[in-house]
Amino acid sequence: MTRRDATAKKTLAKIEALAKAVVRDIQKKQNPRIEIPLRTLSNITYNARKKIIEMGKETQERSFFNVSQARKFMQTFLVASACKELIETGKTTSIRDLYYMTKHTLGNSKVNTFEEQDESDPIIEDLEVTLDALREELHLFANRKGLMVGPMTIVDSGDTIDLRRQGSGGWGVPSIVEPNVIKFGKHEARYVLLVEKEAVWSRFNEDKFWKKEKCMLIHGGGQPPRGVRRLVHRMHYELGLPVYVLVDNDPWGFYIYSVVKQGSINLAYESMRMAVPRARFIGISSRDAERYGIPEETSIRLDEGDHRRIRQMLEYPWFQDKKWRRELETMAKSNRKYEIEALSRRGISFITEEYLPRKLAEKDWLE
Amino acid sequence: MTRRDATAKKTLAKIEALAKAVVRDIQKKQNPRIEIPLRTLSNITYNARKKIIEMGKETQERSFFNVSQARKFMQTFLVASACKELIETGKTTSIRDLYYMTKHTLGNSKVNTFEEQDESDPIIEDLEVTLDALREELHLFANRKGLMVGPMTIVDSGDTIDLRRQGSGGWGVPSIVEPNVIKFGKHEARYVLLVEKEAVWSRFNEDKFWKKEKCMLIHGGGQPPRGVRRLVHRMHYELGLPVYVLVDNDPWGFYIYSVVKQGSINLAYESMRMAVPRARFIGISSRDAERYGIPEETSIRLDEGDHRRIRQMLEYPWFQDKKWRRELETMAKSNRKYEIEALSRRGISFITEEYLPRKLAEKDWLE
Repeated sequence: MTRRDATAKKTLAKIEALAKAVVRDIQKKQNPRIEIPLRTLSNITYNARKKIIEMGKETQERSFFNVSQARKFMQTFLVASACKELIETGKTTSIRDLYYMTKHTLGNSKVNTFEEQDESDPIIEDLEVTLDALREELHLFANRKGLMVGPMTIVDSGDTIDLRRQGSGGWGVPSIVEPNVIKFGKHEARYVLLVEKEAVWSRFNEDKFWKKEKCMLIHGGGQPPRGVRRLVHRMHYELGLPVYVLVDNDPWGFYIYSVVKQGSINLAYESMRMAVPRARFIGISSRDAERYGIPEETSIRLDEGDHRRIRQMLEYPWFQDKKWRRELETMAKSNRKYEIEALSRRGISFITEEYLPRKLAEKDWLE
Repeated sequence: MTRRDATAKKTLAKIEALAKAVVRDIQKKQNPRIEIPLRTLSNITYNARKKIIEMGKETQERSFFNVSQARKFMQTFLVASACKELIETGKTTSIRDLYYMTKHTLGNSKVNTFEEQDESDPIIEDLEVTLDALREELHLFANRKGLMVGPMTIVDSGDTIDLRRQGSGGWGVPSIVEPNVIKFGKHEARYVLLVEKEAVWSRFNEDKFWKKEKCMLIHGGGQPPRGVRRLVHRMHYELGLPVYVLVDNDPWGFYIYSVVKQGSINLAYESMRMAVPRARFIGISSRDAERYGIPEETSIRLDEGDHRRIRQMLEYPWFQDKKWRRELETMAKSNRKYEIEALSRRGISFITEEYLPRKLAEKDWLE
């Protein structure tokens, strides 16, 4: 028997409650049904006070005796049952794996429980919102990217790891970083620096920026995966560390920052445990090229997609702040974007030795 | 002054020799020129004895007083000069960064030294073959993916790291794993297991397969990046460890194995230091579905691209072995491919508890 921690017990209880309610329906000779919170744009709002994207209260019914719902009803319980098995055996797996675990041909028919993974993935999301359990609590992991180093000792699945001694490699941030897996130990960190790109992370690590500055250095390989976002969230709330985000000066970089800050529309139901509304955008700002002498030949012209994205972002309620509007409008007007690497034109360690220290000293960031 | 190790001194000497030869040309009032080995298909052969893909002896001349070569001539020395600076300061960087470092607008013209990175990347490759120096020896790193755990202590950039205690995260394999950066310490490993996918690696790590089996567990996130290939190569040759490769049962998986084994056509000049001709293909074999009771509904139908790829591979000199031909022909005939995850249909830990142990016990692999 695998040891089950408090979280596992809670999640198991939720799955069992869902199943028991359906059994009760059957005993009462009623159509078995479950209520699933709606994951549509219409059921999503921006909570201006909490500064995160949230799900509303709308739900839809999914019942067994309904031609258009029977298949999904069956699938929901197949996935729930597989997750129950995972939790009970103390194992975790990928959503691709779960698809294969639950794929069967039904009886002598040619019908499969799932035809493609794009059928099982939404069912997982349904289950997450219905049970109010993160995917990680269902023991499912996502693809992962991302590395971390810094002045902190952690315990990962029972192994004590000193993130001050991870060489050039770094510790790979797992997809599941819940408190039962990753525990924070002794640390001297003053803040968290989340950089968009692995190559930039390597520059900061090689220059031992995290040692001089006493910061946790983490990257997410572009749009940070769930594990990285959740870990940054935990360091912010549990350890009280401010979070700085360093991304390319382009609409995609701003969007990455925006997701770290208030969550994404797709995963609105997870904002509570992923988003960091007080995350600070430390660069690259649209005015940095001038301030830091980055020559124009290192810039890239905006394309139509960039302009469309900027117009979109200007309409988001969370980009209504005056400073953010100026930032976006400056970019659109200059018709120029800059990758973080453009700073290397000023010298290979310009970014770690001059750019970021000055930015921090001058408190030159946006929230 | 940064400490320079033997490799750095050797590479610096090569760059200086290249430059001095050109200076001599100028002093003799000759057209300055360099000889660059040809990186074309015509200059690539399969060495059947060594079982690796190799570059031939053909070269091309690149001279300064030649309208079609002057620009590339200038670029070659710009890149060489930047690499010299990197080596002298003991720093490493990405090829994207190098592009920005060397991008200038020439005088009052509107002409840039490089317009796009796709101009600087081939120059780097030219320089590698001309100097007979790996990109890593020029202090340039590539994008990286890949994690490793296992019964071994390593030293990475001066930090001692116990790969037996890396939790669920794992140690991120850096792009540069040359002996001056990564040193192997005490180990009890009996072999190296290279798996194609991160999610599968996580399954093996969670089940502590590497502990029971005493193997180094490494993945490359699809086609393994240079760092992973080079590290596997080093463990094979320096520590005498056999290498097993576990990939999807599809043409792409077989191709990944093939590159690990004898190198790729694109990077033929690096096979000597990357390829592992005795690497063993442990699965998923086209006959495993039947042998291991993997139901057909977990398979995927081959598409036209798959069939084209199979026909192509059947023509490669290194796939002429009878057993490999049977493997490829079985796949084509069955019209079916299987992802590694399809094994999960037999149980979540079927792969670590039954499939791989039996494969190894029965010596059921291809070389």
